[in-house]
Amino acid sequence: MAVVTKISPLAPKAFPDLPVIKGVRFATAAAGVRYQGRTDVMLAVADAGSSVAGVFTKSATRAAPVLDCQDKIGKSSDAGVAILVNSGNANAFTGKFGRASVEAITSAVADSTNMSVERVFTSSTGVIGEPLPHDRVIAVIDELNRNLSENALKDAARAIMTTDTYAKGASAVVETPAGPVNIAGIAKGSGMIAPDMATMLVYIFTDAKIEQSVLQHMISSITAQTFNCITVDSDTSTSDTLLAVATGASGIAIAEADKEFSDALNSVMLELAHLVVRDGEGATKFVEINVSGAANDADAKTHAMAIANSPLIKTAIAGEDPNWGRVVMAIGKSGAAADRDSLSISFGDILVAKEGWVADDYREEDGANYMKNDHIVLNVDVGIGDGESTVWTCDLTHGYIEINADYRS
Amino acid sequence: MAVVTKISPLAPKAFPDLPVIKGVRFATAAAGVRYQGRTDVMLAVADAGSSVAGVFTKSATRAAPVLDCQDKIGKSSDAGVAILVNSGNANAFTGKFGRASVEAITSAVADSTNMSVERVFTSSTGVIGEPLPHDRVIAVIDELNRNLSENALKDAARAIMTTDTYAKGASAVVETPAGPVNIAGIAKGSGMIAPDMATMLVYIFTDAKIEQSVLQHMISSITAQTFNCITVDSDTSTSDTLLAVATGASGIAIAEADKEFSDALNSVMLELAHLVVRDGEGATKFVEINVSGAANDADAKTHAMAIANSPLIKTAIAGEDPNWGRVVMAIGKSGAAADRDSLSISFGDILVAKEGWVADDYREEDGANYMKNDHIVLNVDVGIGDGESTVWTCDLTHGYIEINADYRS
Repeated sequence: MAVVTKISPLAPKAFPDLPVIKGVRFATAAAGVRYQGRTDVMLAVADAGSSVAGVFTKSATRAAPVLDCQDKIGKSSDAGVAILVNSGNANAFTGKFGRASVEAITSAVADSTNMSVERVFTSSTGVIGEPLPHDRVIAVIDELNRNLSENALKDAARAIMTTDTYAKGASAVVETPAGPVNIAGIAKGSGMIAPDMATMLVYIFTDAKIEQSVLQHMISSITAQTFNCITVDSDTSTSDTLLAVATGASGIAIAEADKEFSDALNSVMLELAHLVVRDGEGATKFVEINVSGAANDADAKTHAMAIANSPLIKTAIAGEDPNWGRVVMAIGKSGAAADRDSLSISFGDILVAKEGWVADDYREEDGANYMKNDHIVLNVDVGIGDGESTVWTCDLTHGYIEINADYRS
Repeated sequence: MAVVTKISPLAPKAFPDLPVIKGVRFATAAAGVRYQGRTDVMLAVADAGSSVAGVFTKSATRAAPVLDCQDKIGKSSDAGVAILVNSGNANAFTGKFGRASVEAITSAVADSTNMSVERVFTSSTGVIGEPLPHDRVIAVIDELNRNLSENALKDAARAIMTTDTYAKGASAVVETPAGPVNIAGIAKGSGMIAPDMATMLVYIFTDAKIEQSVLQHMISSITAQTFNCITVDSDTSTSDTLLAVATGASGIAIAEADKEFSDALNSVMLELAHLVVRDGEGATKFVEINVSGAANDADAKTHAMAIANSPLIKTAIAGEDPNWGRVVMAIGKSGAAADRDSLSISFGDILVAKEGWVADDYREEDGANYMKNDHIVLNVDVGIGDGESTVWTCDLTHGYIEINADYRS
């Protein structure tokens, strides 16, 4: 691991103050799974009456803990919920050993917390293809269970980091007629040191009372507009997991139709998604891509992702080059409908190309000046319909090559 | 253009000796479209009795010359054929000005060569979104027509270069009972200086006598196994064009069923495709990816392209890291069918992973040693069917970032 940790230039100044979420407690420990001298396991335990929902990677080679979570999620229950996460080893591509590790850990957590194994969820993140030394994790479970605290969510955000250069948290408070409801979440993703696969893990907690099916529907639909709209390098993890727990400890019930809560949850998930992009490997620019005027929303997203994943566009942004020709190229290759002569492109407020031709008033120096910003907005109007989509990405720099071309050992 | 030209380390030692193709002549000229001090226009004129077939980019934002070629190709005719190519300007995203430039150039070529405008094909490659100064091209057409020579195909390979670091040519001779038939081709693609879109142009000539529909069918099906199986950076050009001309000057007719000719044509096209990859921007490794055991051939190609386009795999290869975990990741994300526990992966002859688990005899040092080669073969057996595919790519290095993050001016 030759690359030196350097905090992303796009990192927020500090970890935010997160509200206490009544009904769920956290603890972290240093189990030495792979890293030394830092915490690498976190346990979250939510009280009886909690609901839990999840969204997982669609990878066909997903890791053993993901398969286990998917088996368990969606079963209605009033029991408590435990979530155990280790960093340093992804327990992915580990065959029957992987399943054995998941069973060993979930059984130990169930025993220690006095909970059904059906309500114990685990995630693992880190290197792939190596057996998880699960004995080391199991050895700290009783200690974790003893140390549970309402105030340790920030510590949990640190314990789940792998190549991240900073811990990621976000929160929101929703004022309801019955009083405030709190939402807080943490995430990890896309860091700088160990040249292994970026993986994304997200854990969100609220003290609202929400039925499992309602919570599941909310996070699934919001994920489509947040986490599923970010990309650092187009490479999908085998371990991506988002779990949301509603403890109900506020005594305030939230229904599916509650727009204010849903908006607040959306803002927490969007902020966490943006924090992952801002920690994208080698990133120096945060890039928002808005596509409008496509044949439909799905086509708009296809165009937007083609732009966001184009190495030629990402390197142009790194080089502060207002290279709109490459945007035309990406629209052209995406496979979604487009008409070259209806296309308009703006960089921020600067109209660069209009109806298939460079805009009359466009001056290259304006484009070049705009590209010096560290938050770049690309607006593309396809000009043939009402479809819209926004996605977020980062640039492609020497830092990305340095991190990922570095030999693993 | 701050980046200094340096010939790709994967370049062949010399341009090959190409056979004369009877019935077609070539000339080049320095028109100063964009570059100074080098040739930038080539004209090929094939005699009456020639057939011509073409394969073009599927981009929805394809350039004006591509649209014009597509309109004309496929019309049976016994007339001669003219092909004019300029480098330095792609005449792409140039709206009605683009069409006017194509009309002006094709008319001038038709007048000078005394040919129907319907048999004049053009390609343009270089910067995008700037009007093509077609007067400069037209000014050299009479000169080109006067200087036509059977021996100038190598010069033509040079004139069509943009960011290429070397000229690309390949040939084959097919011995038939009636005597030899010759095939020769040139290509350009994926170079190092002007940080603009890589574009690929290919021109193939043979003195065989081949019906247009037969020639078209041959090059379409061979393109699927050659040019459509290479990728440098997943970004598709607005100008990709392959034109094949059969002059018939050998007097030897080739039928669709002629396997020997078809194999020879395949070898020429494959060699040109590989030469494009070997000149991939920043490339230091040539990579062959063989996927077998997929549900069907289409799935195998989807897996192979997911591997070939994965930035994490391409950077690992640049770093000589036998990171098979990233191959598992790419298979998982590709969308094609896979079963994690049936997957086997070899680097060259070294079995790395077998049936979803690291191979018993695999030693990391063997993998690391293998990765020092500049020709890397990745073999993936998906283990669930008979589908097969081979694709070729290169690694992703600092050179790619340097070339493409560099400001255009």
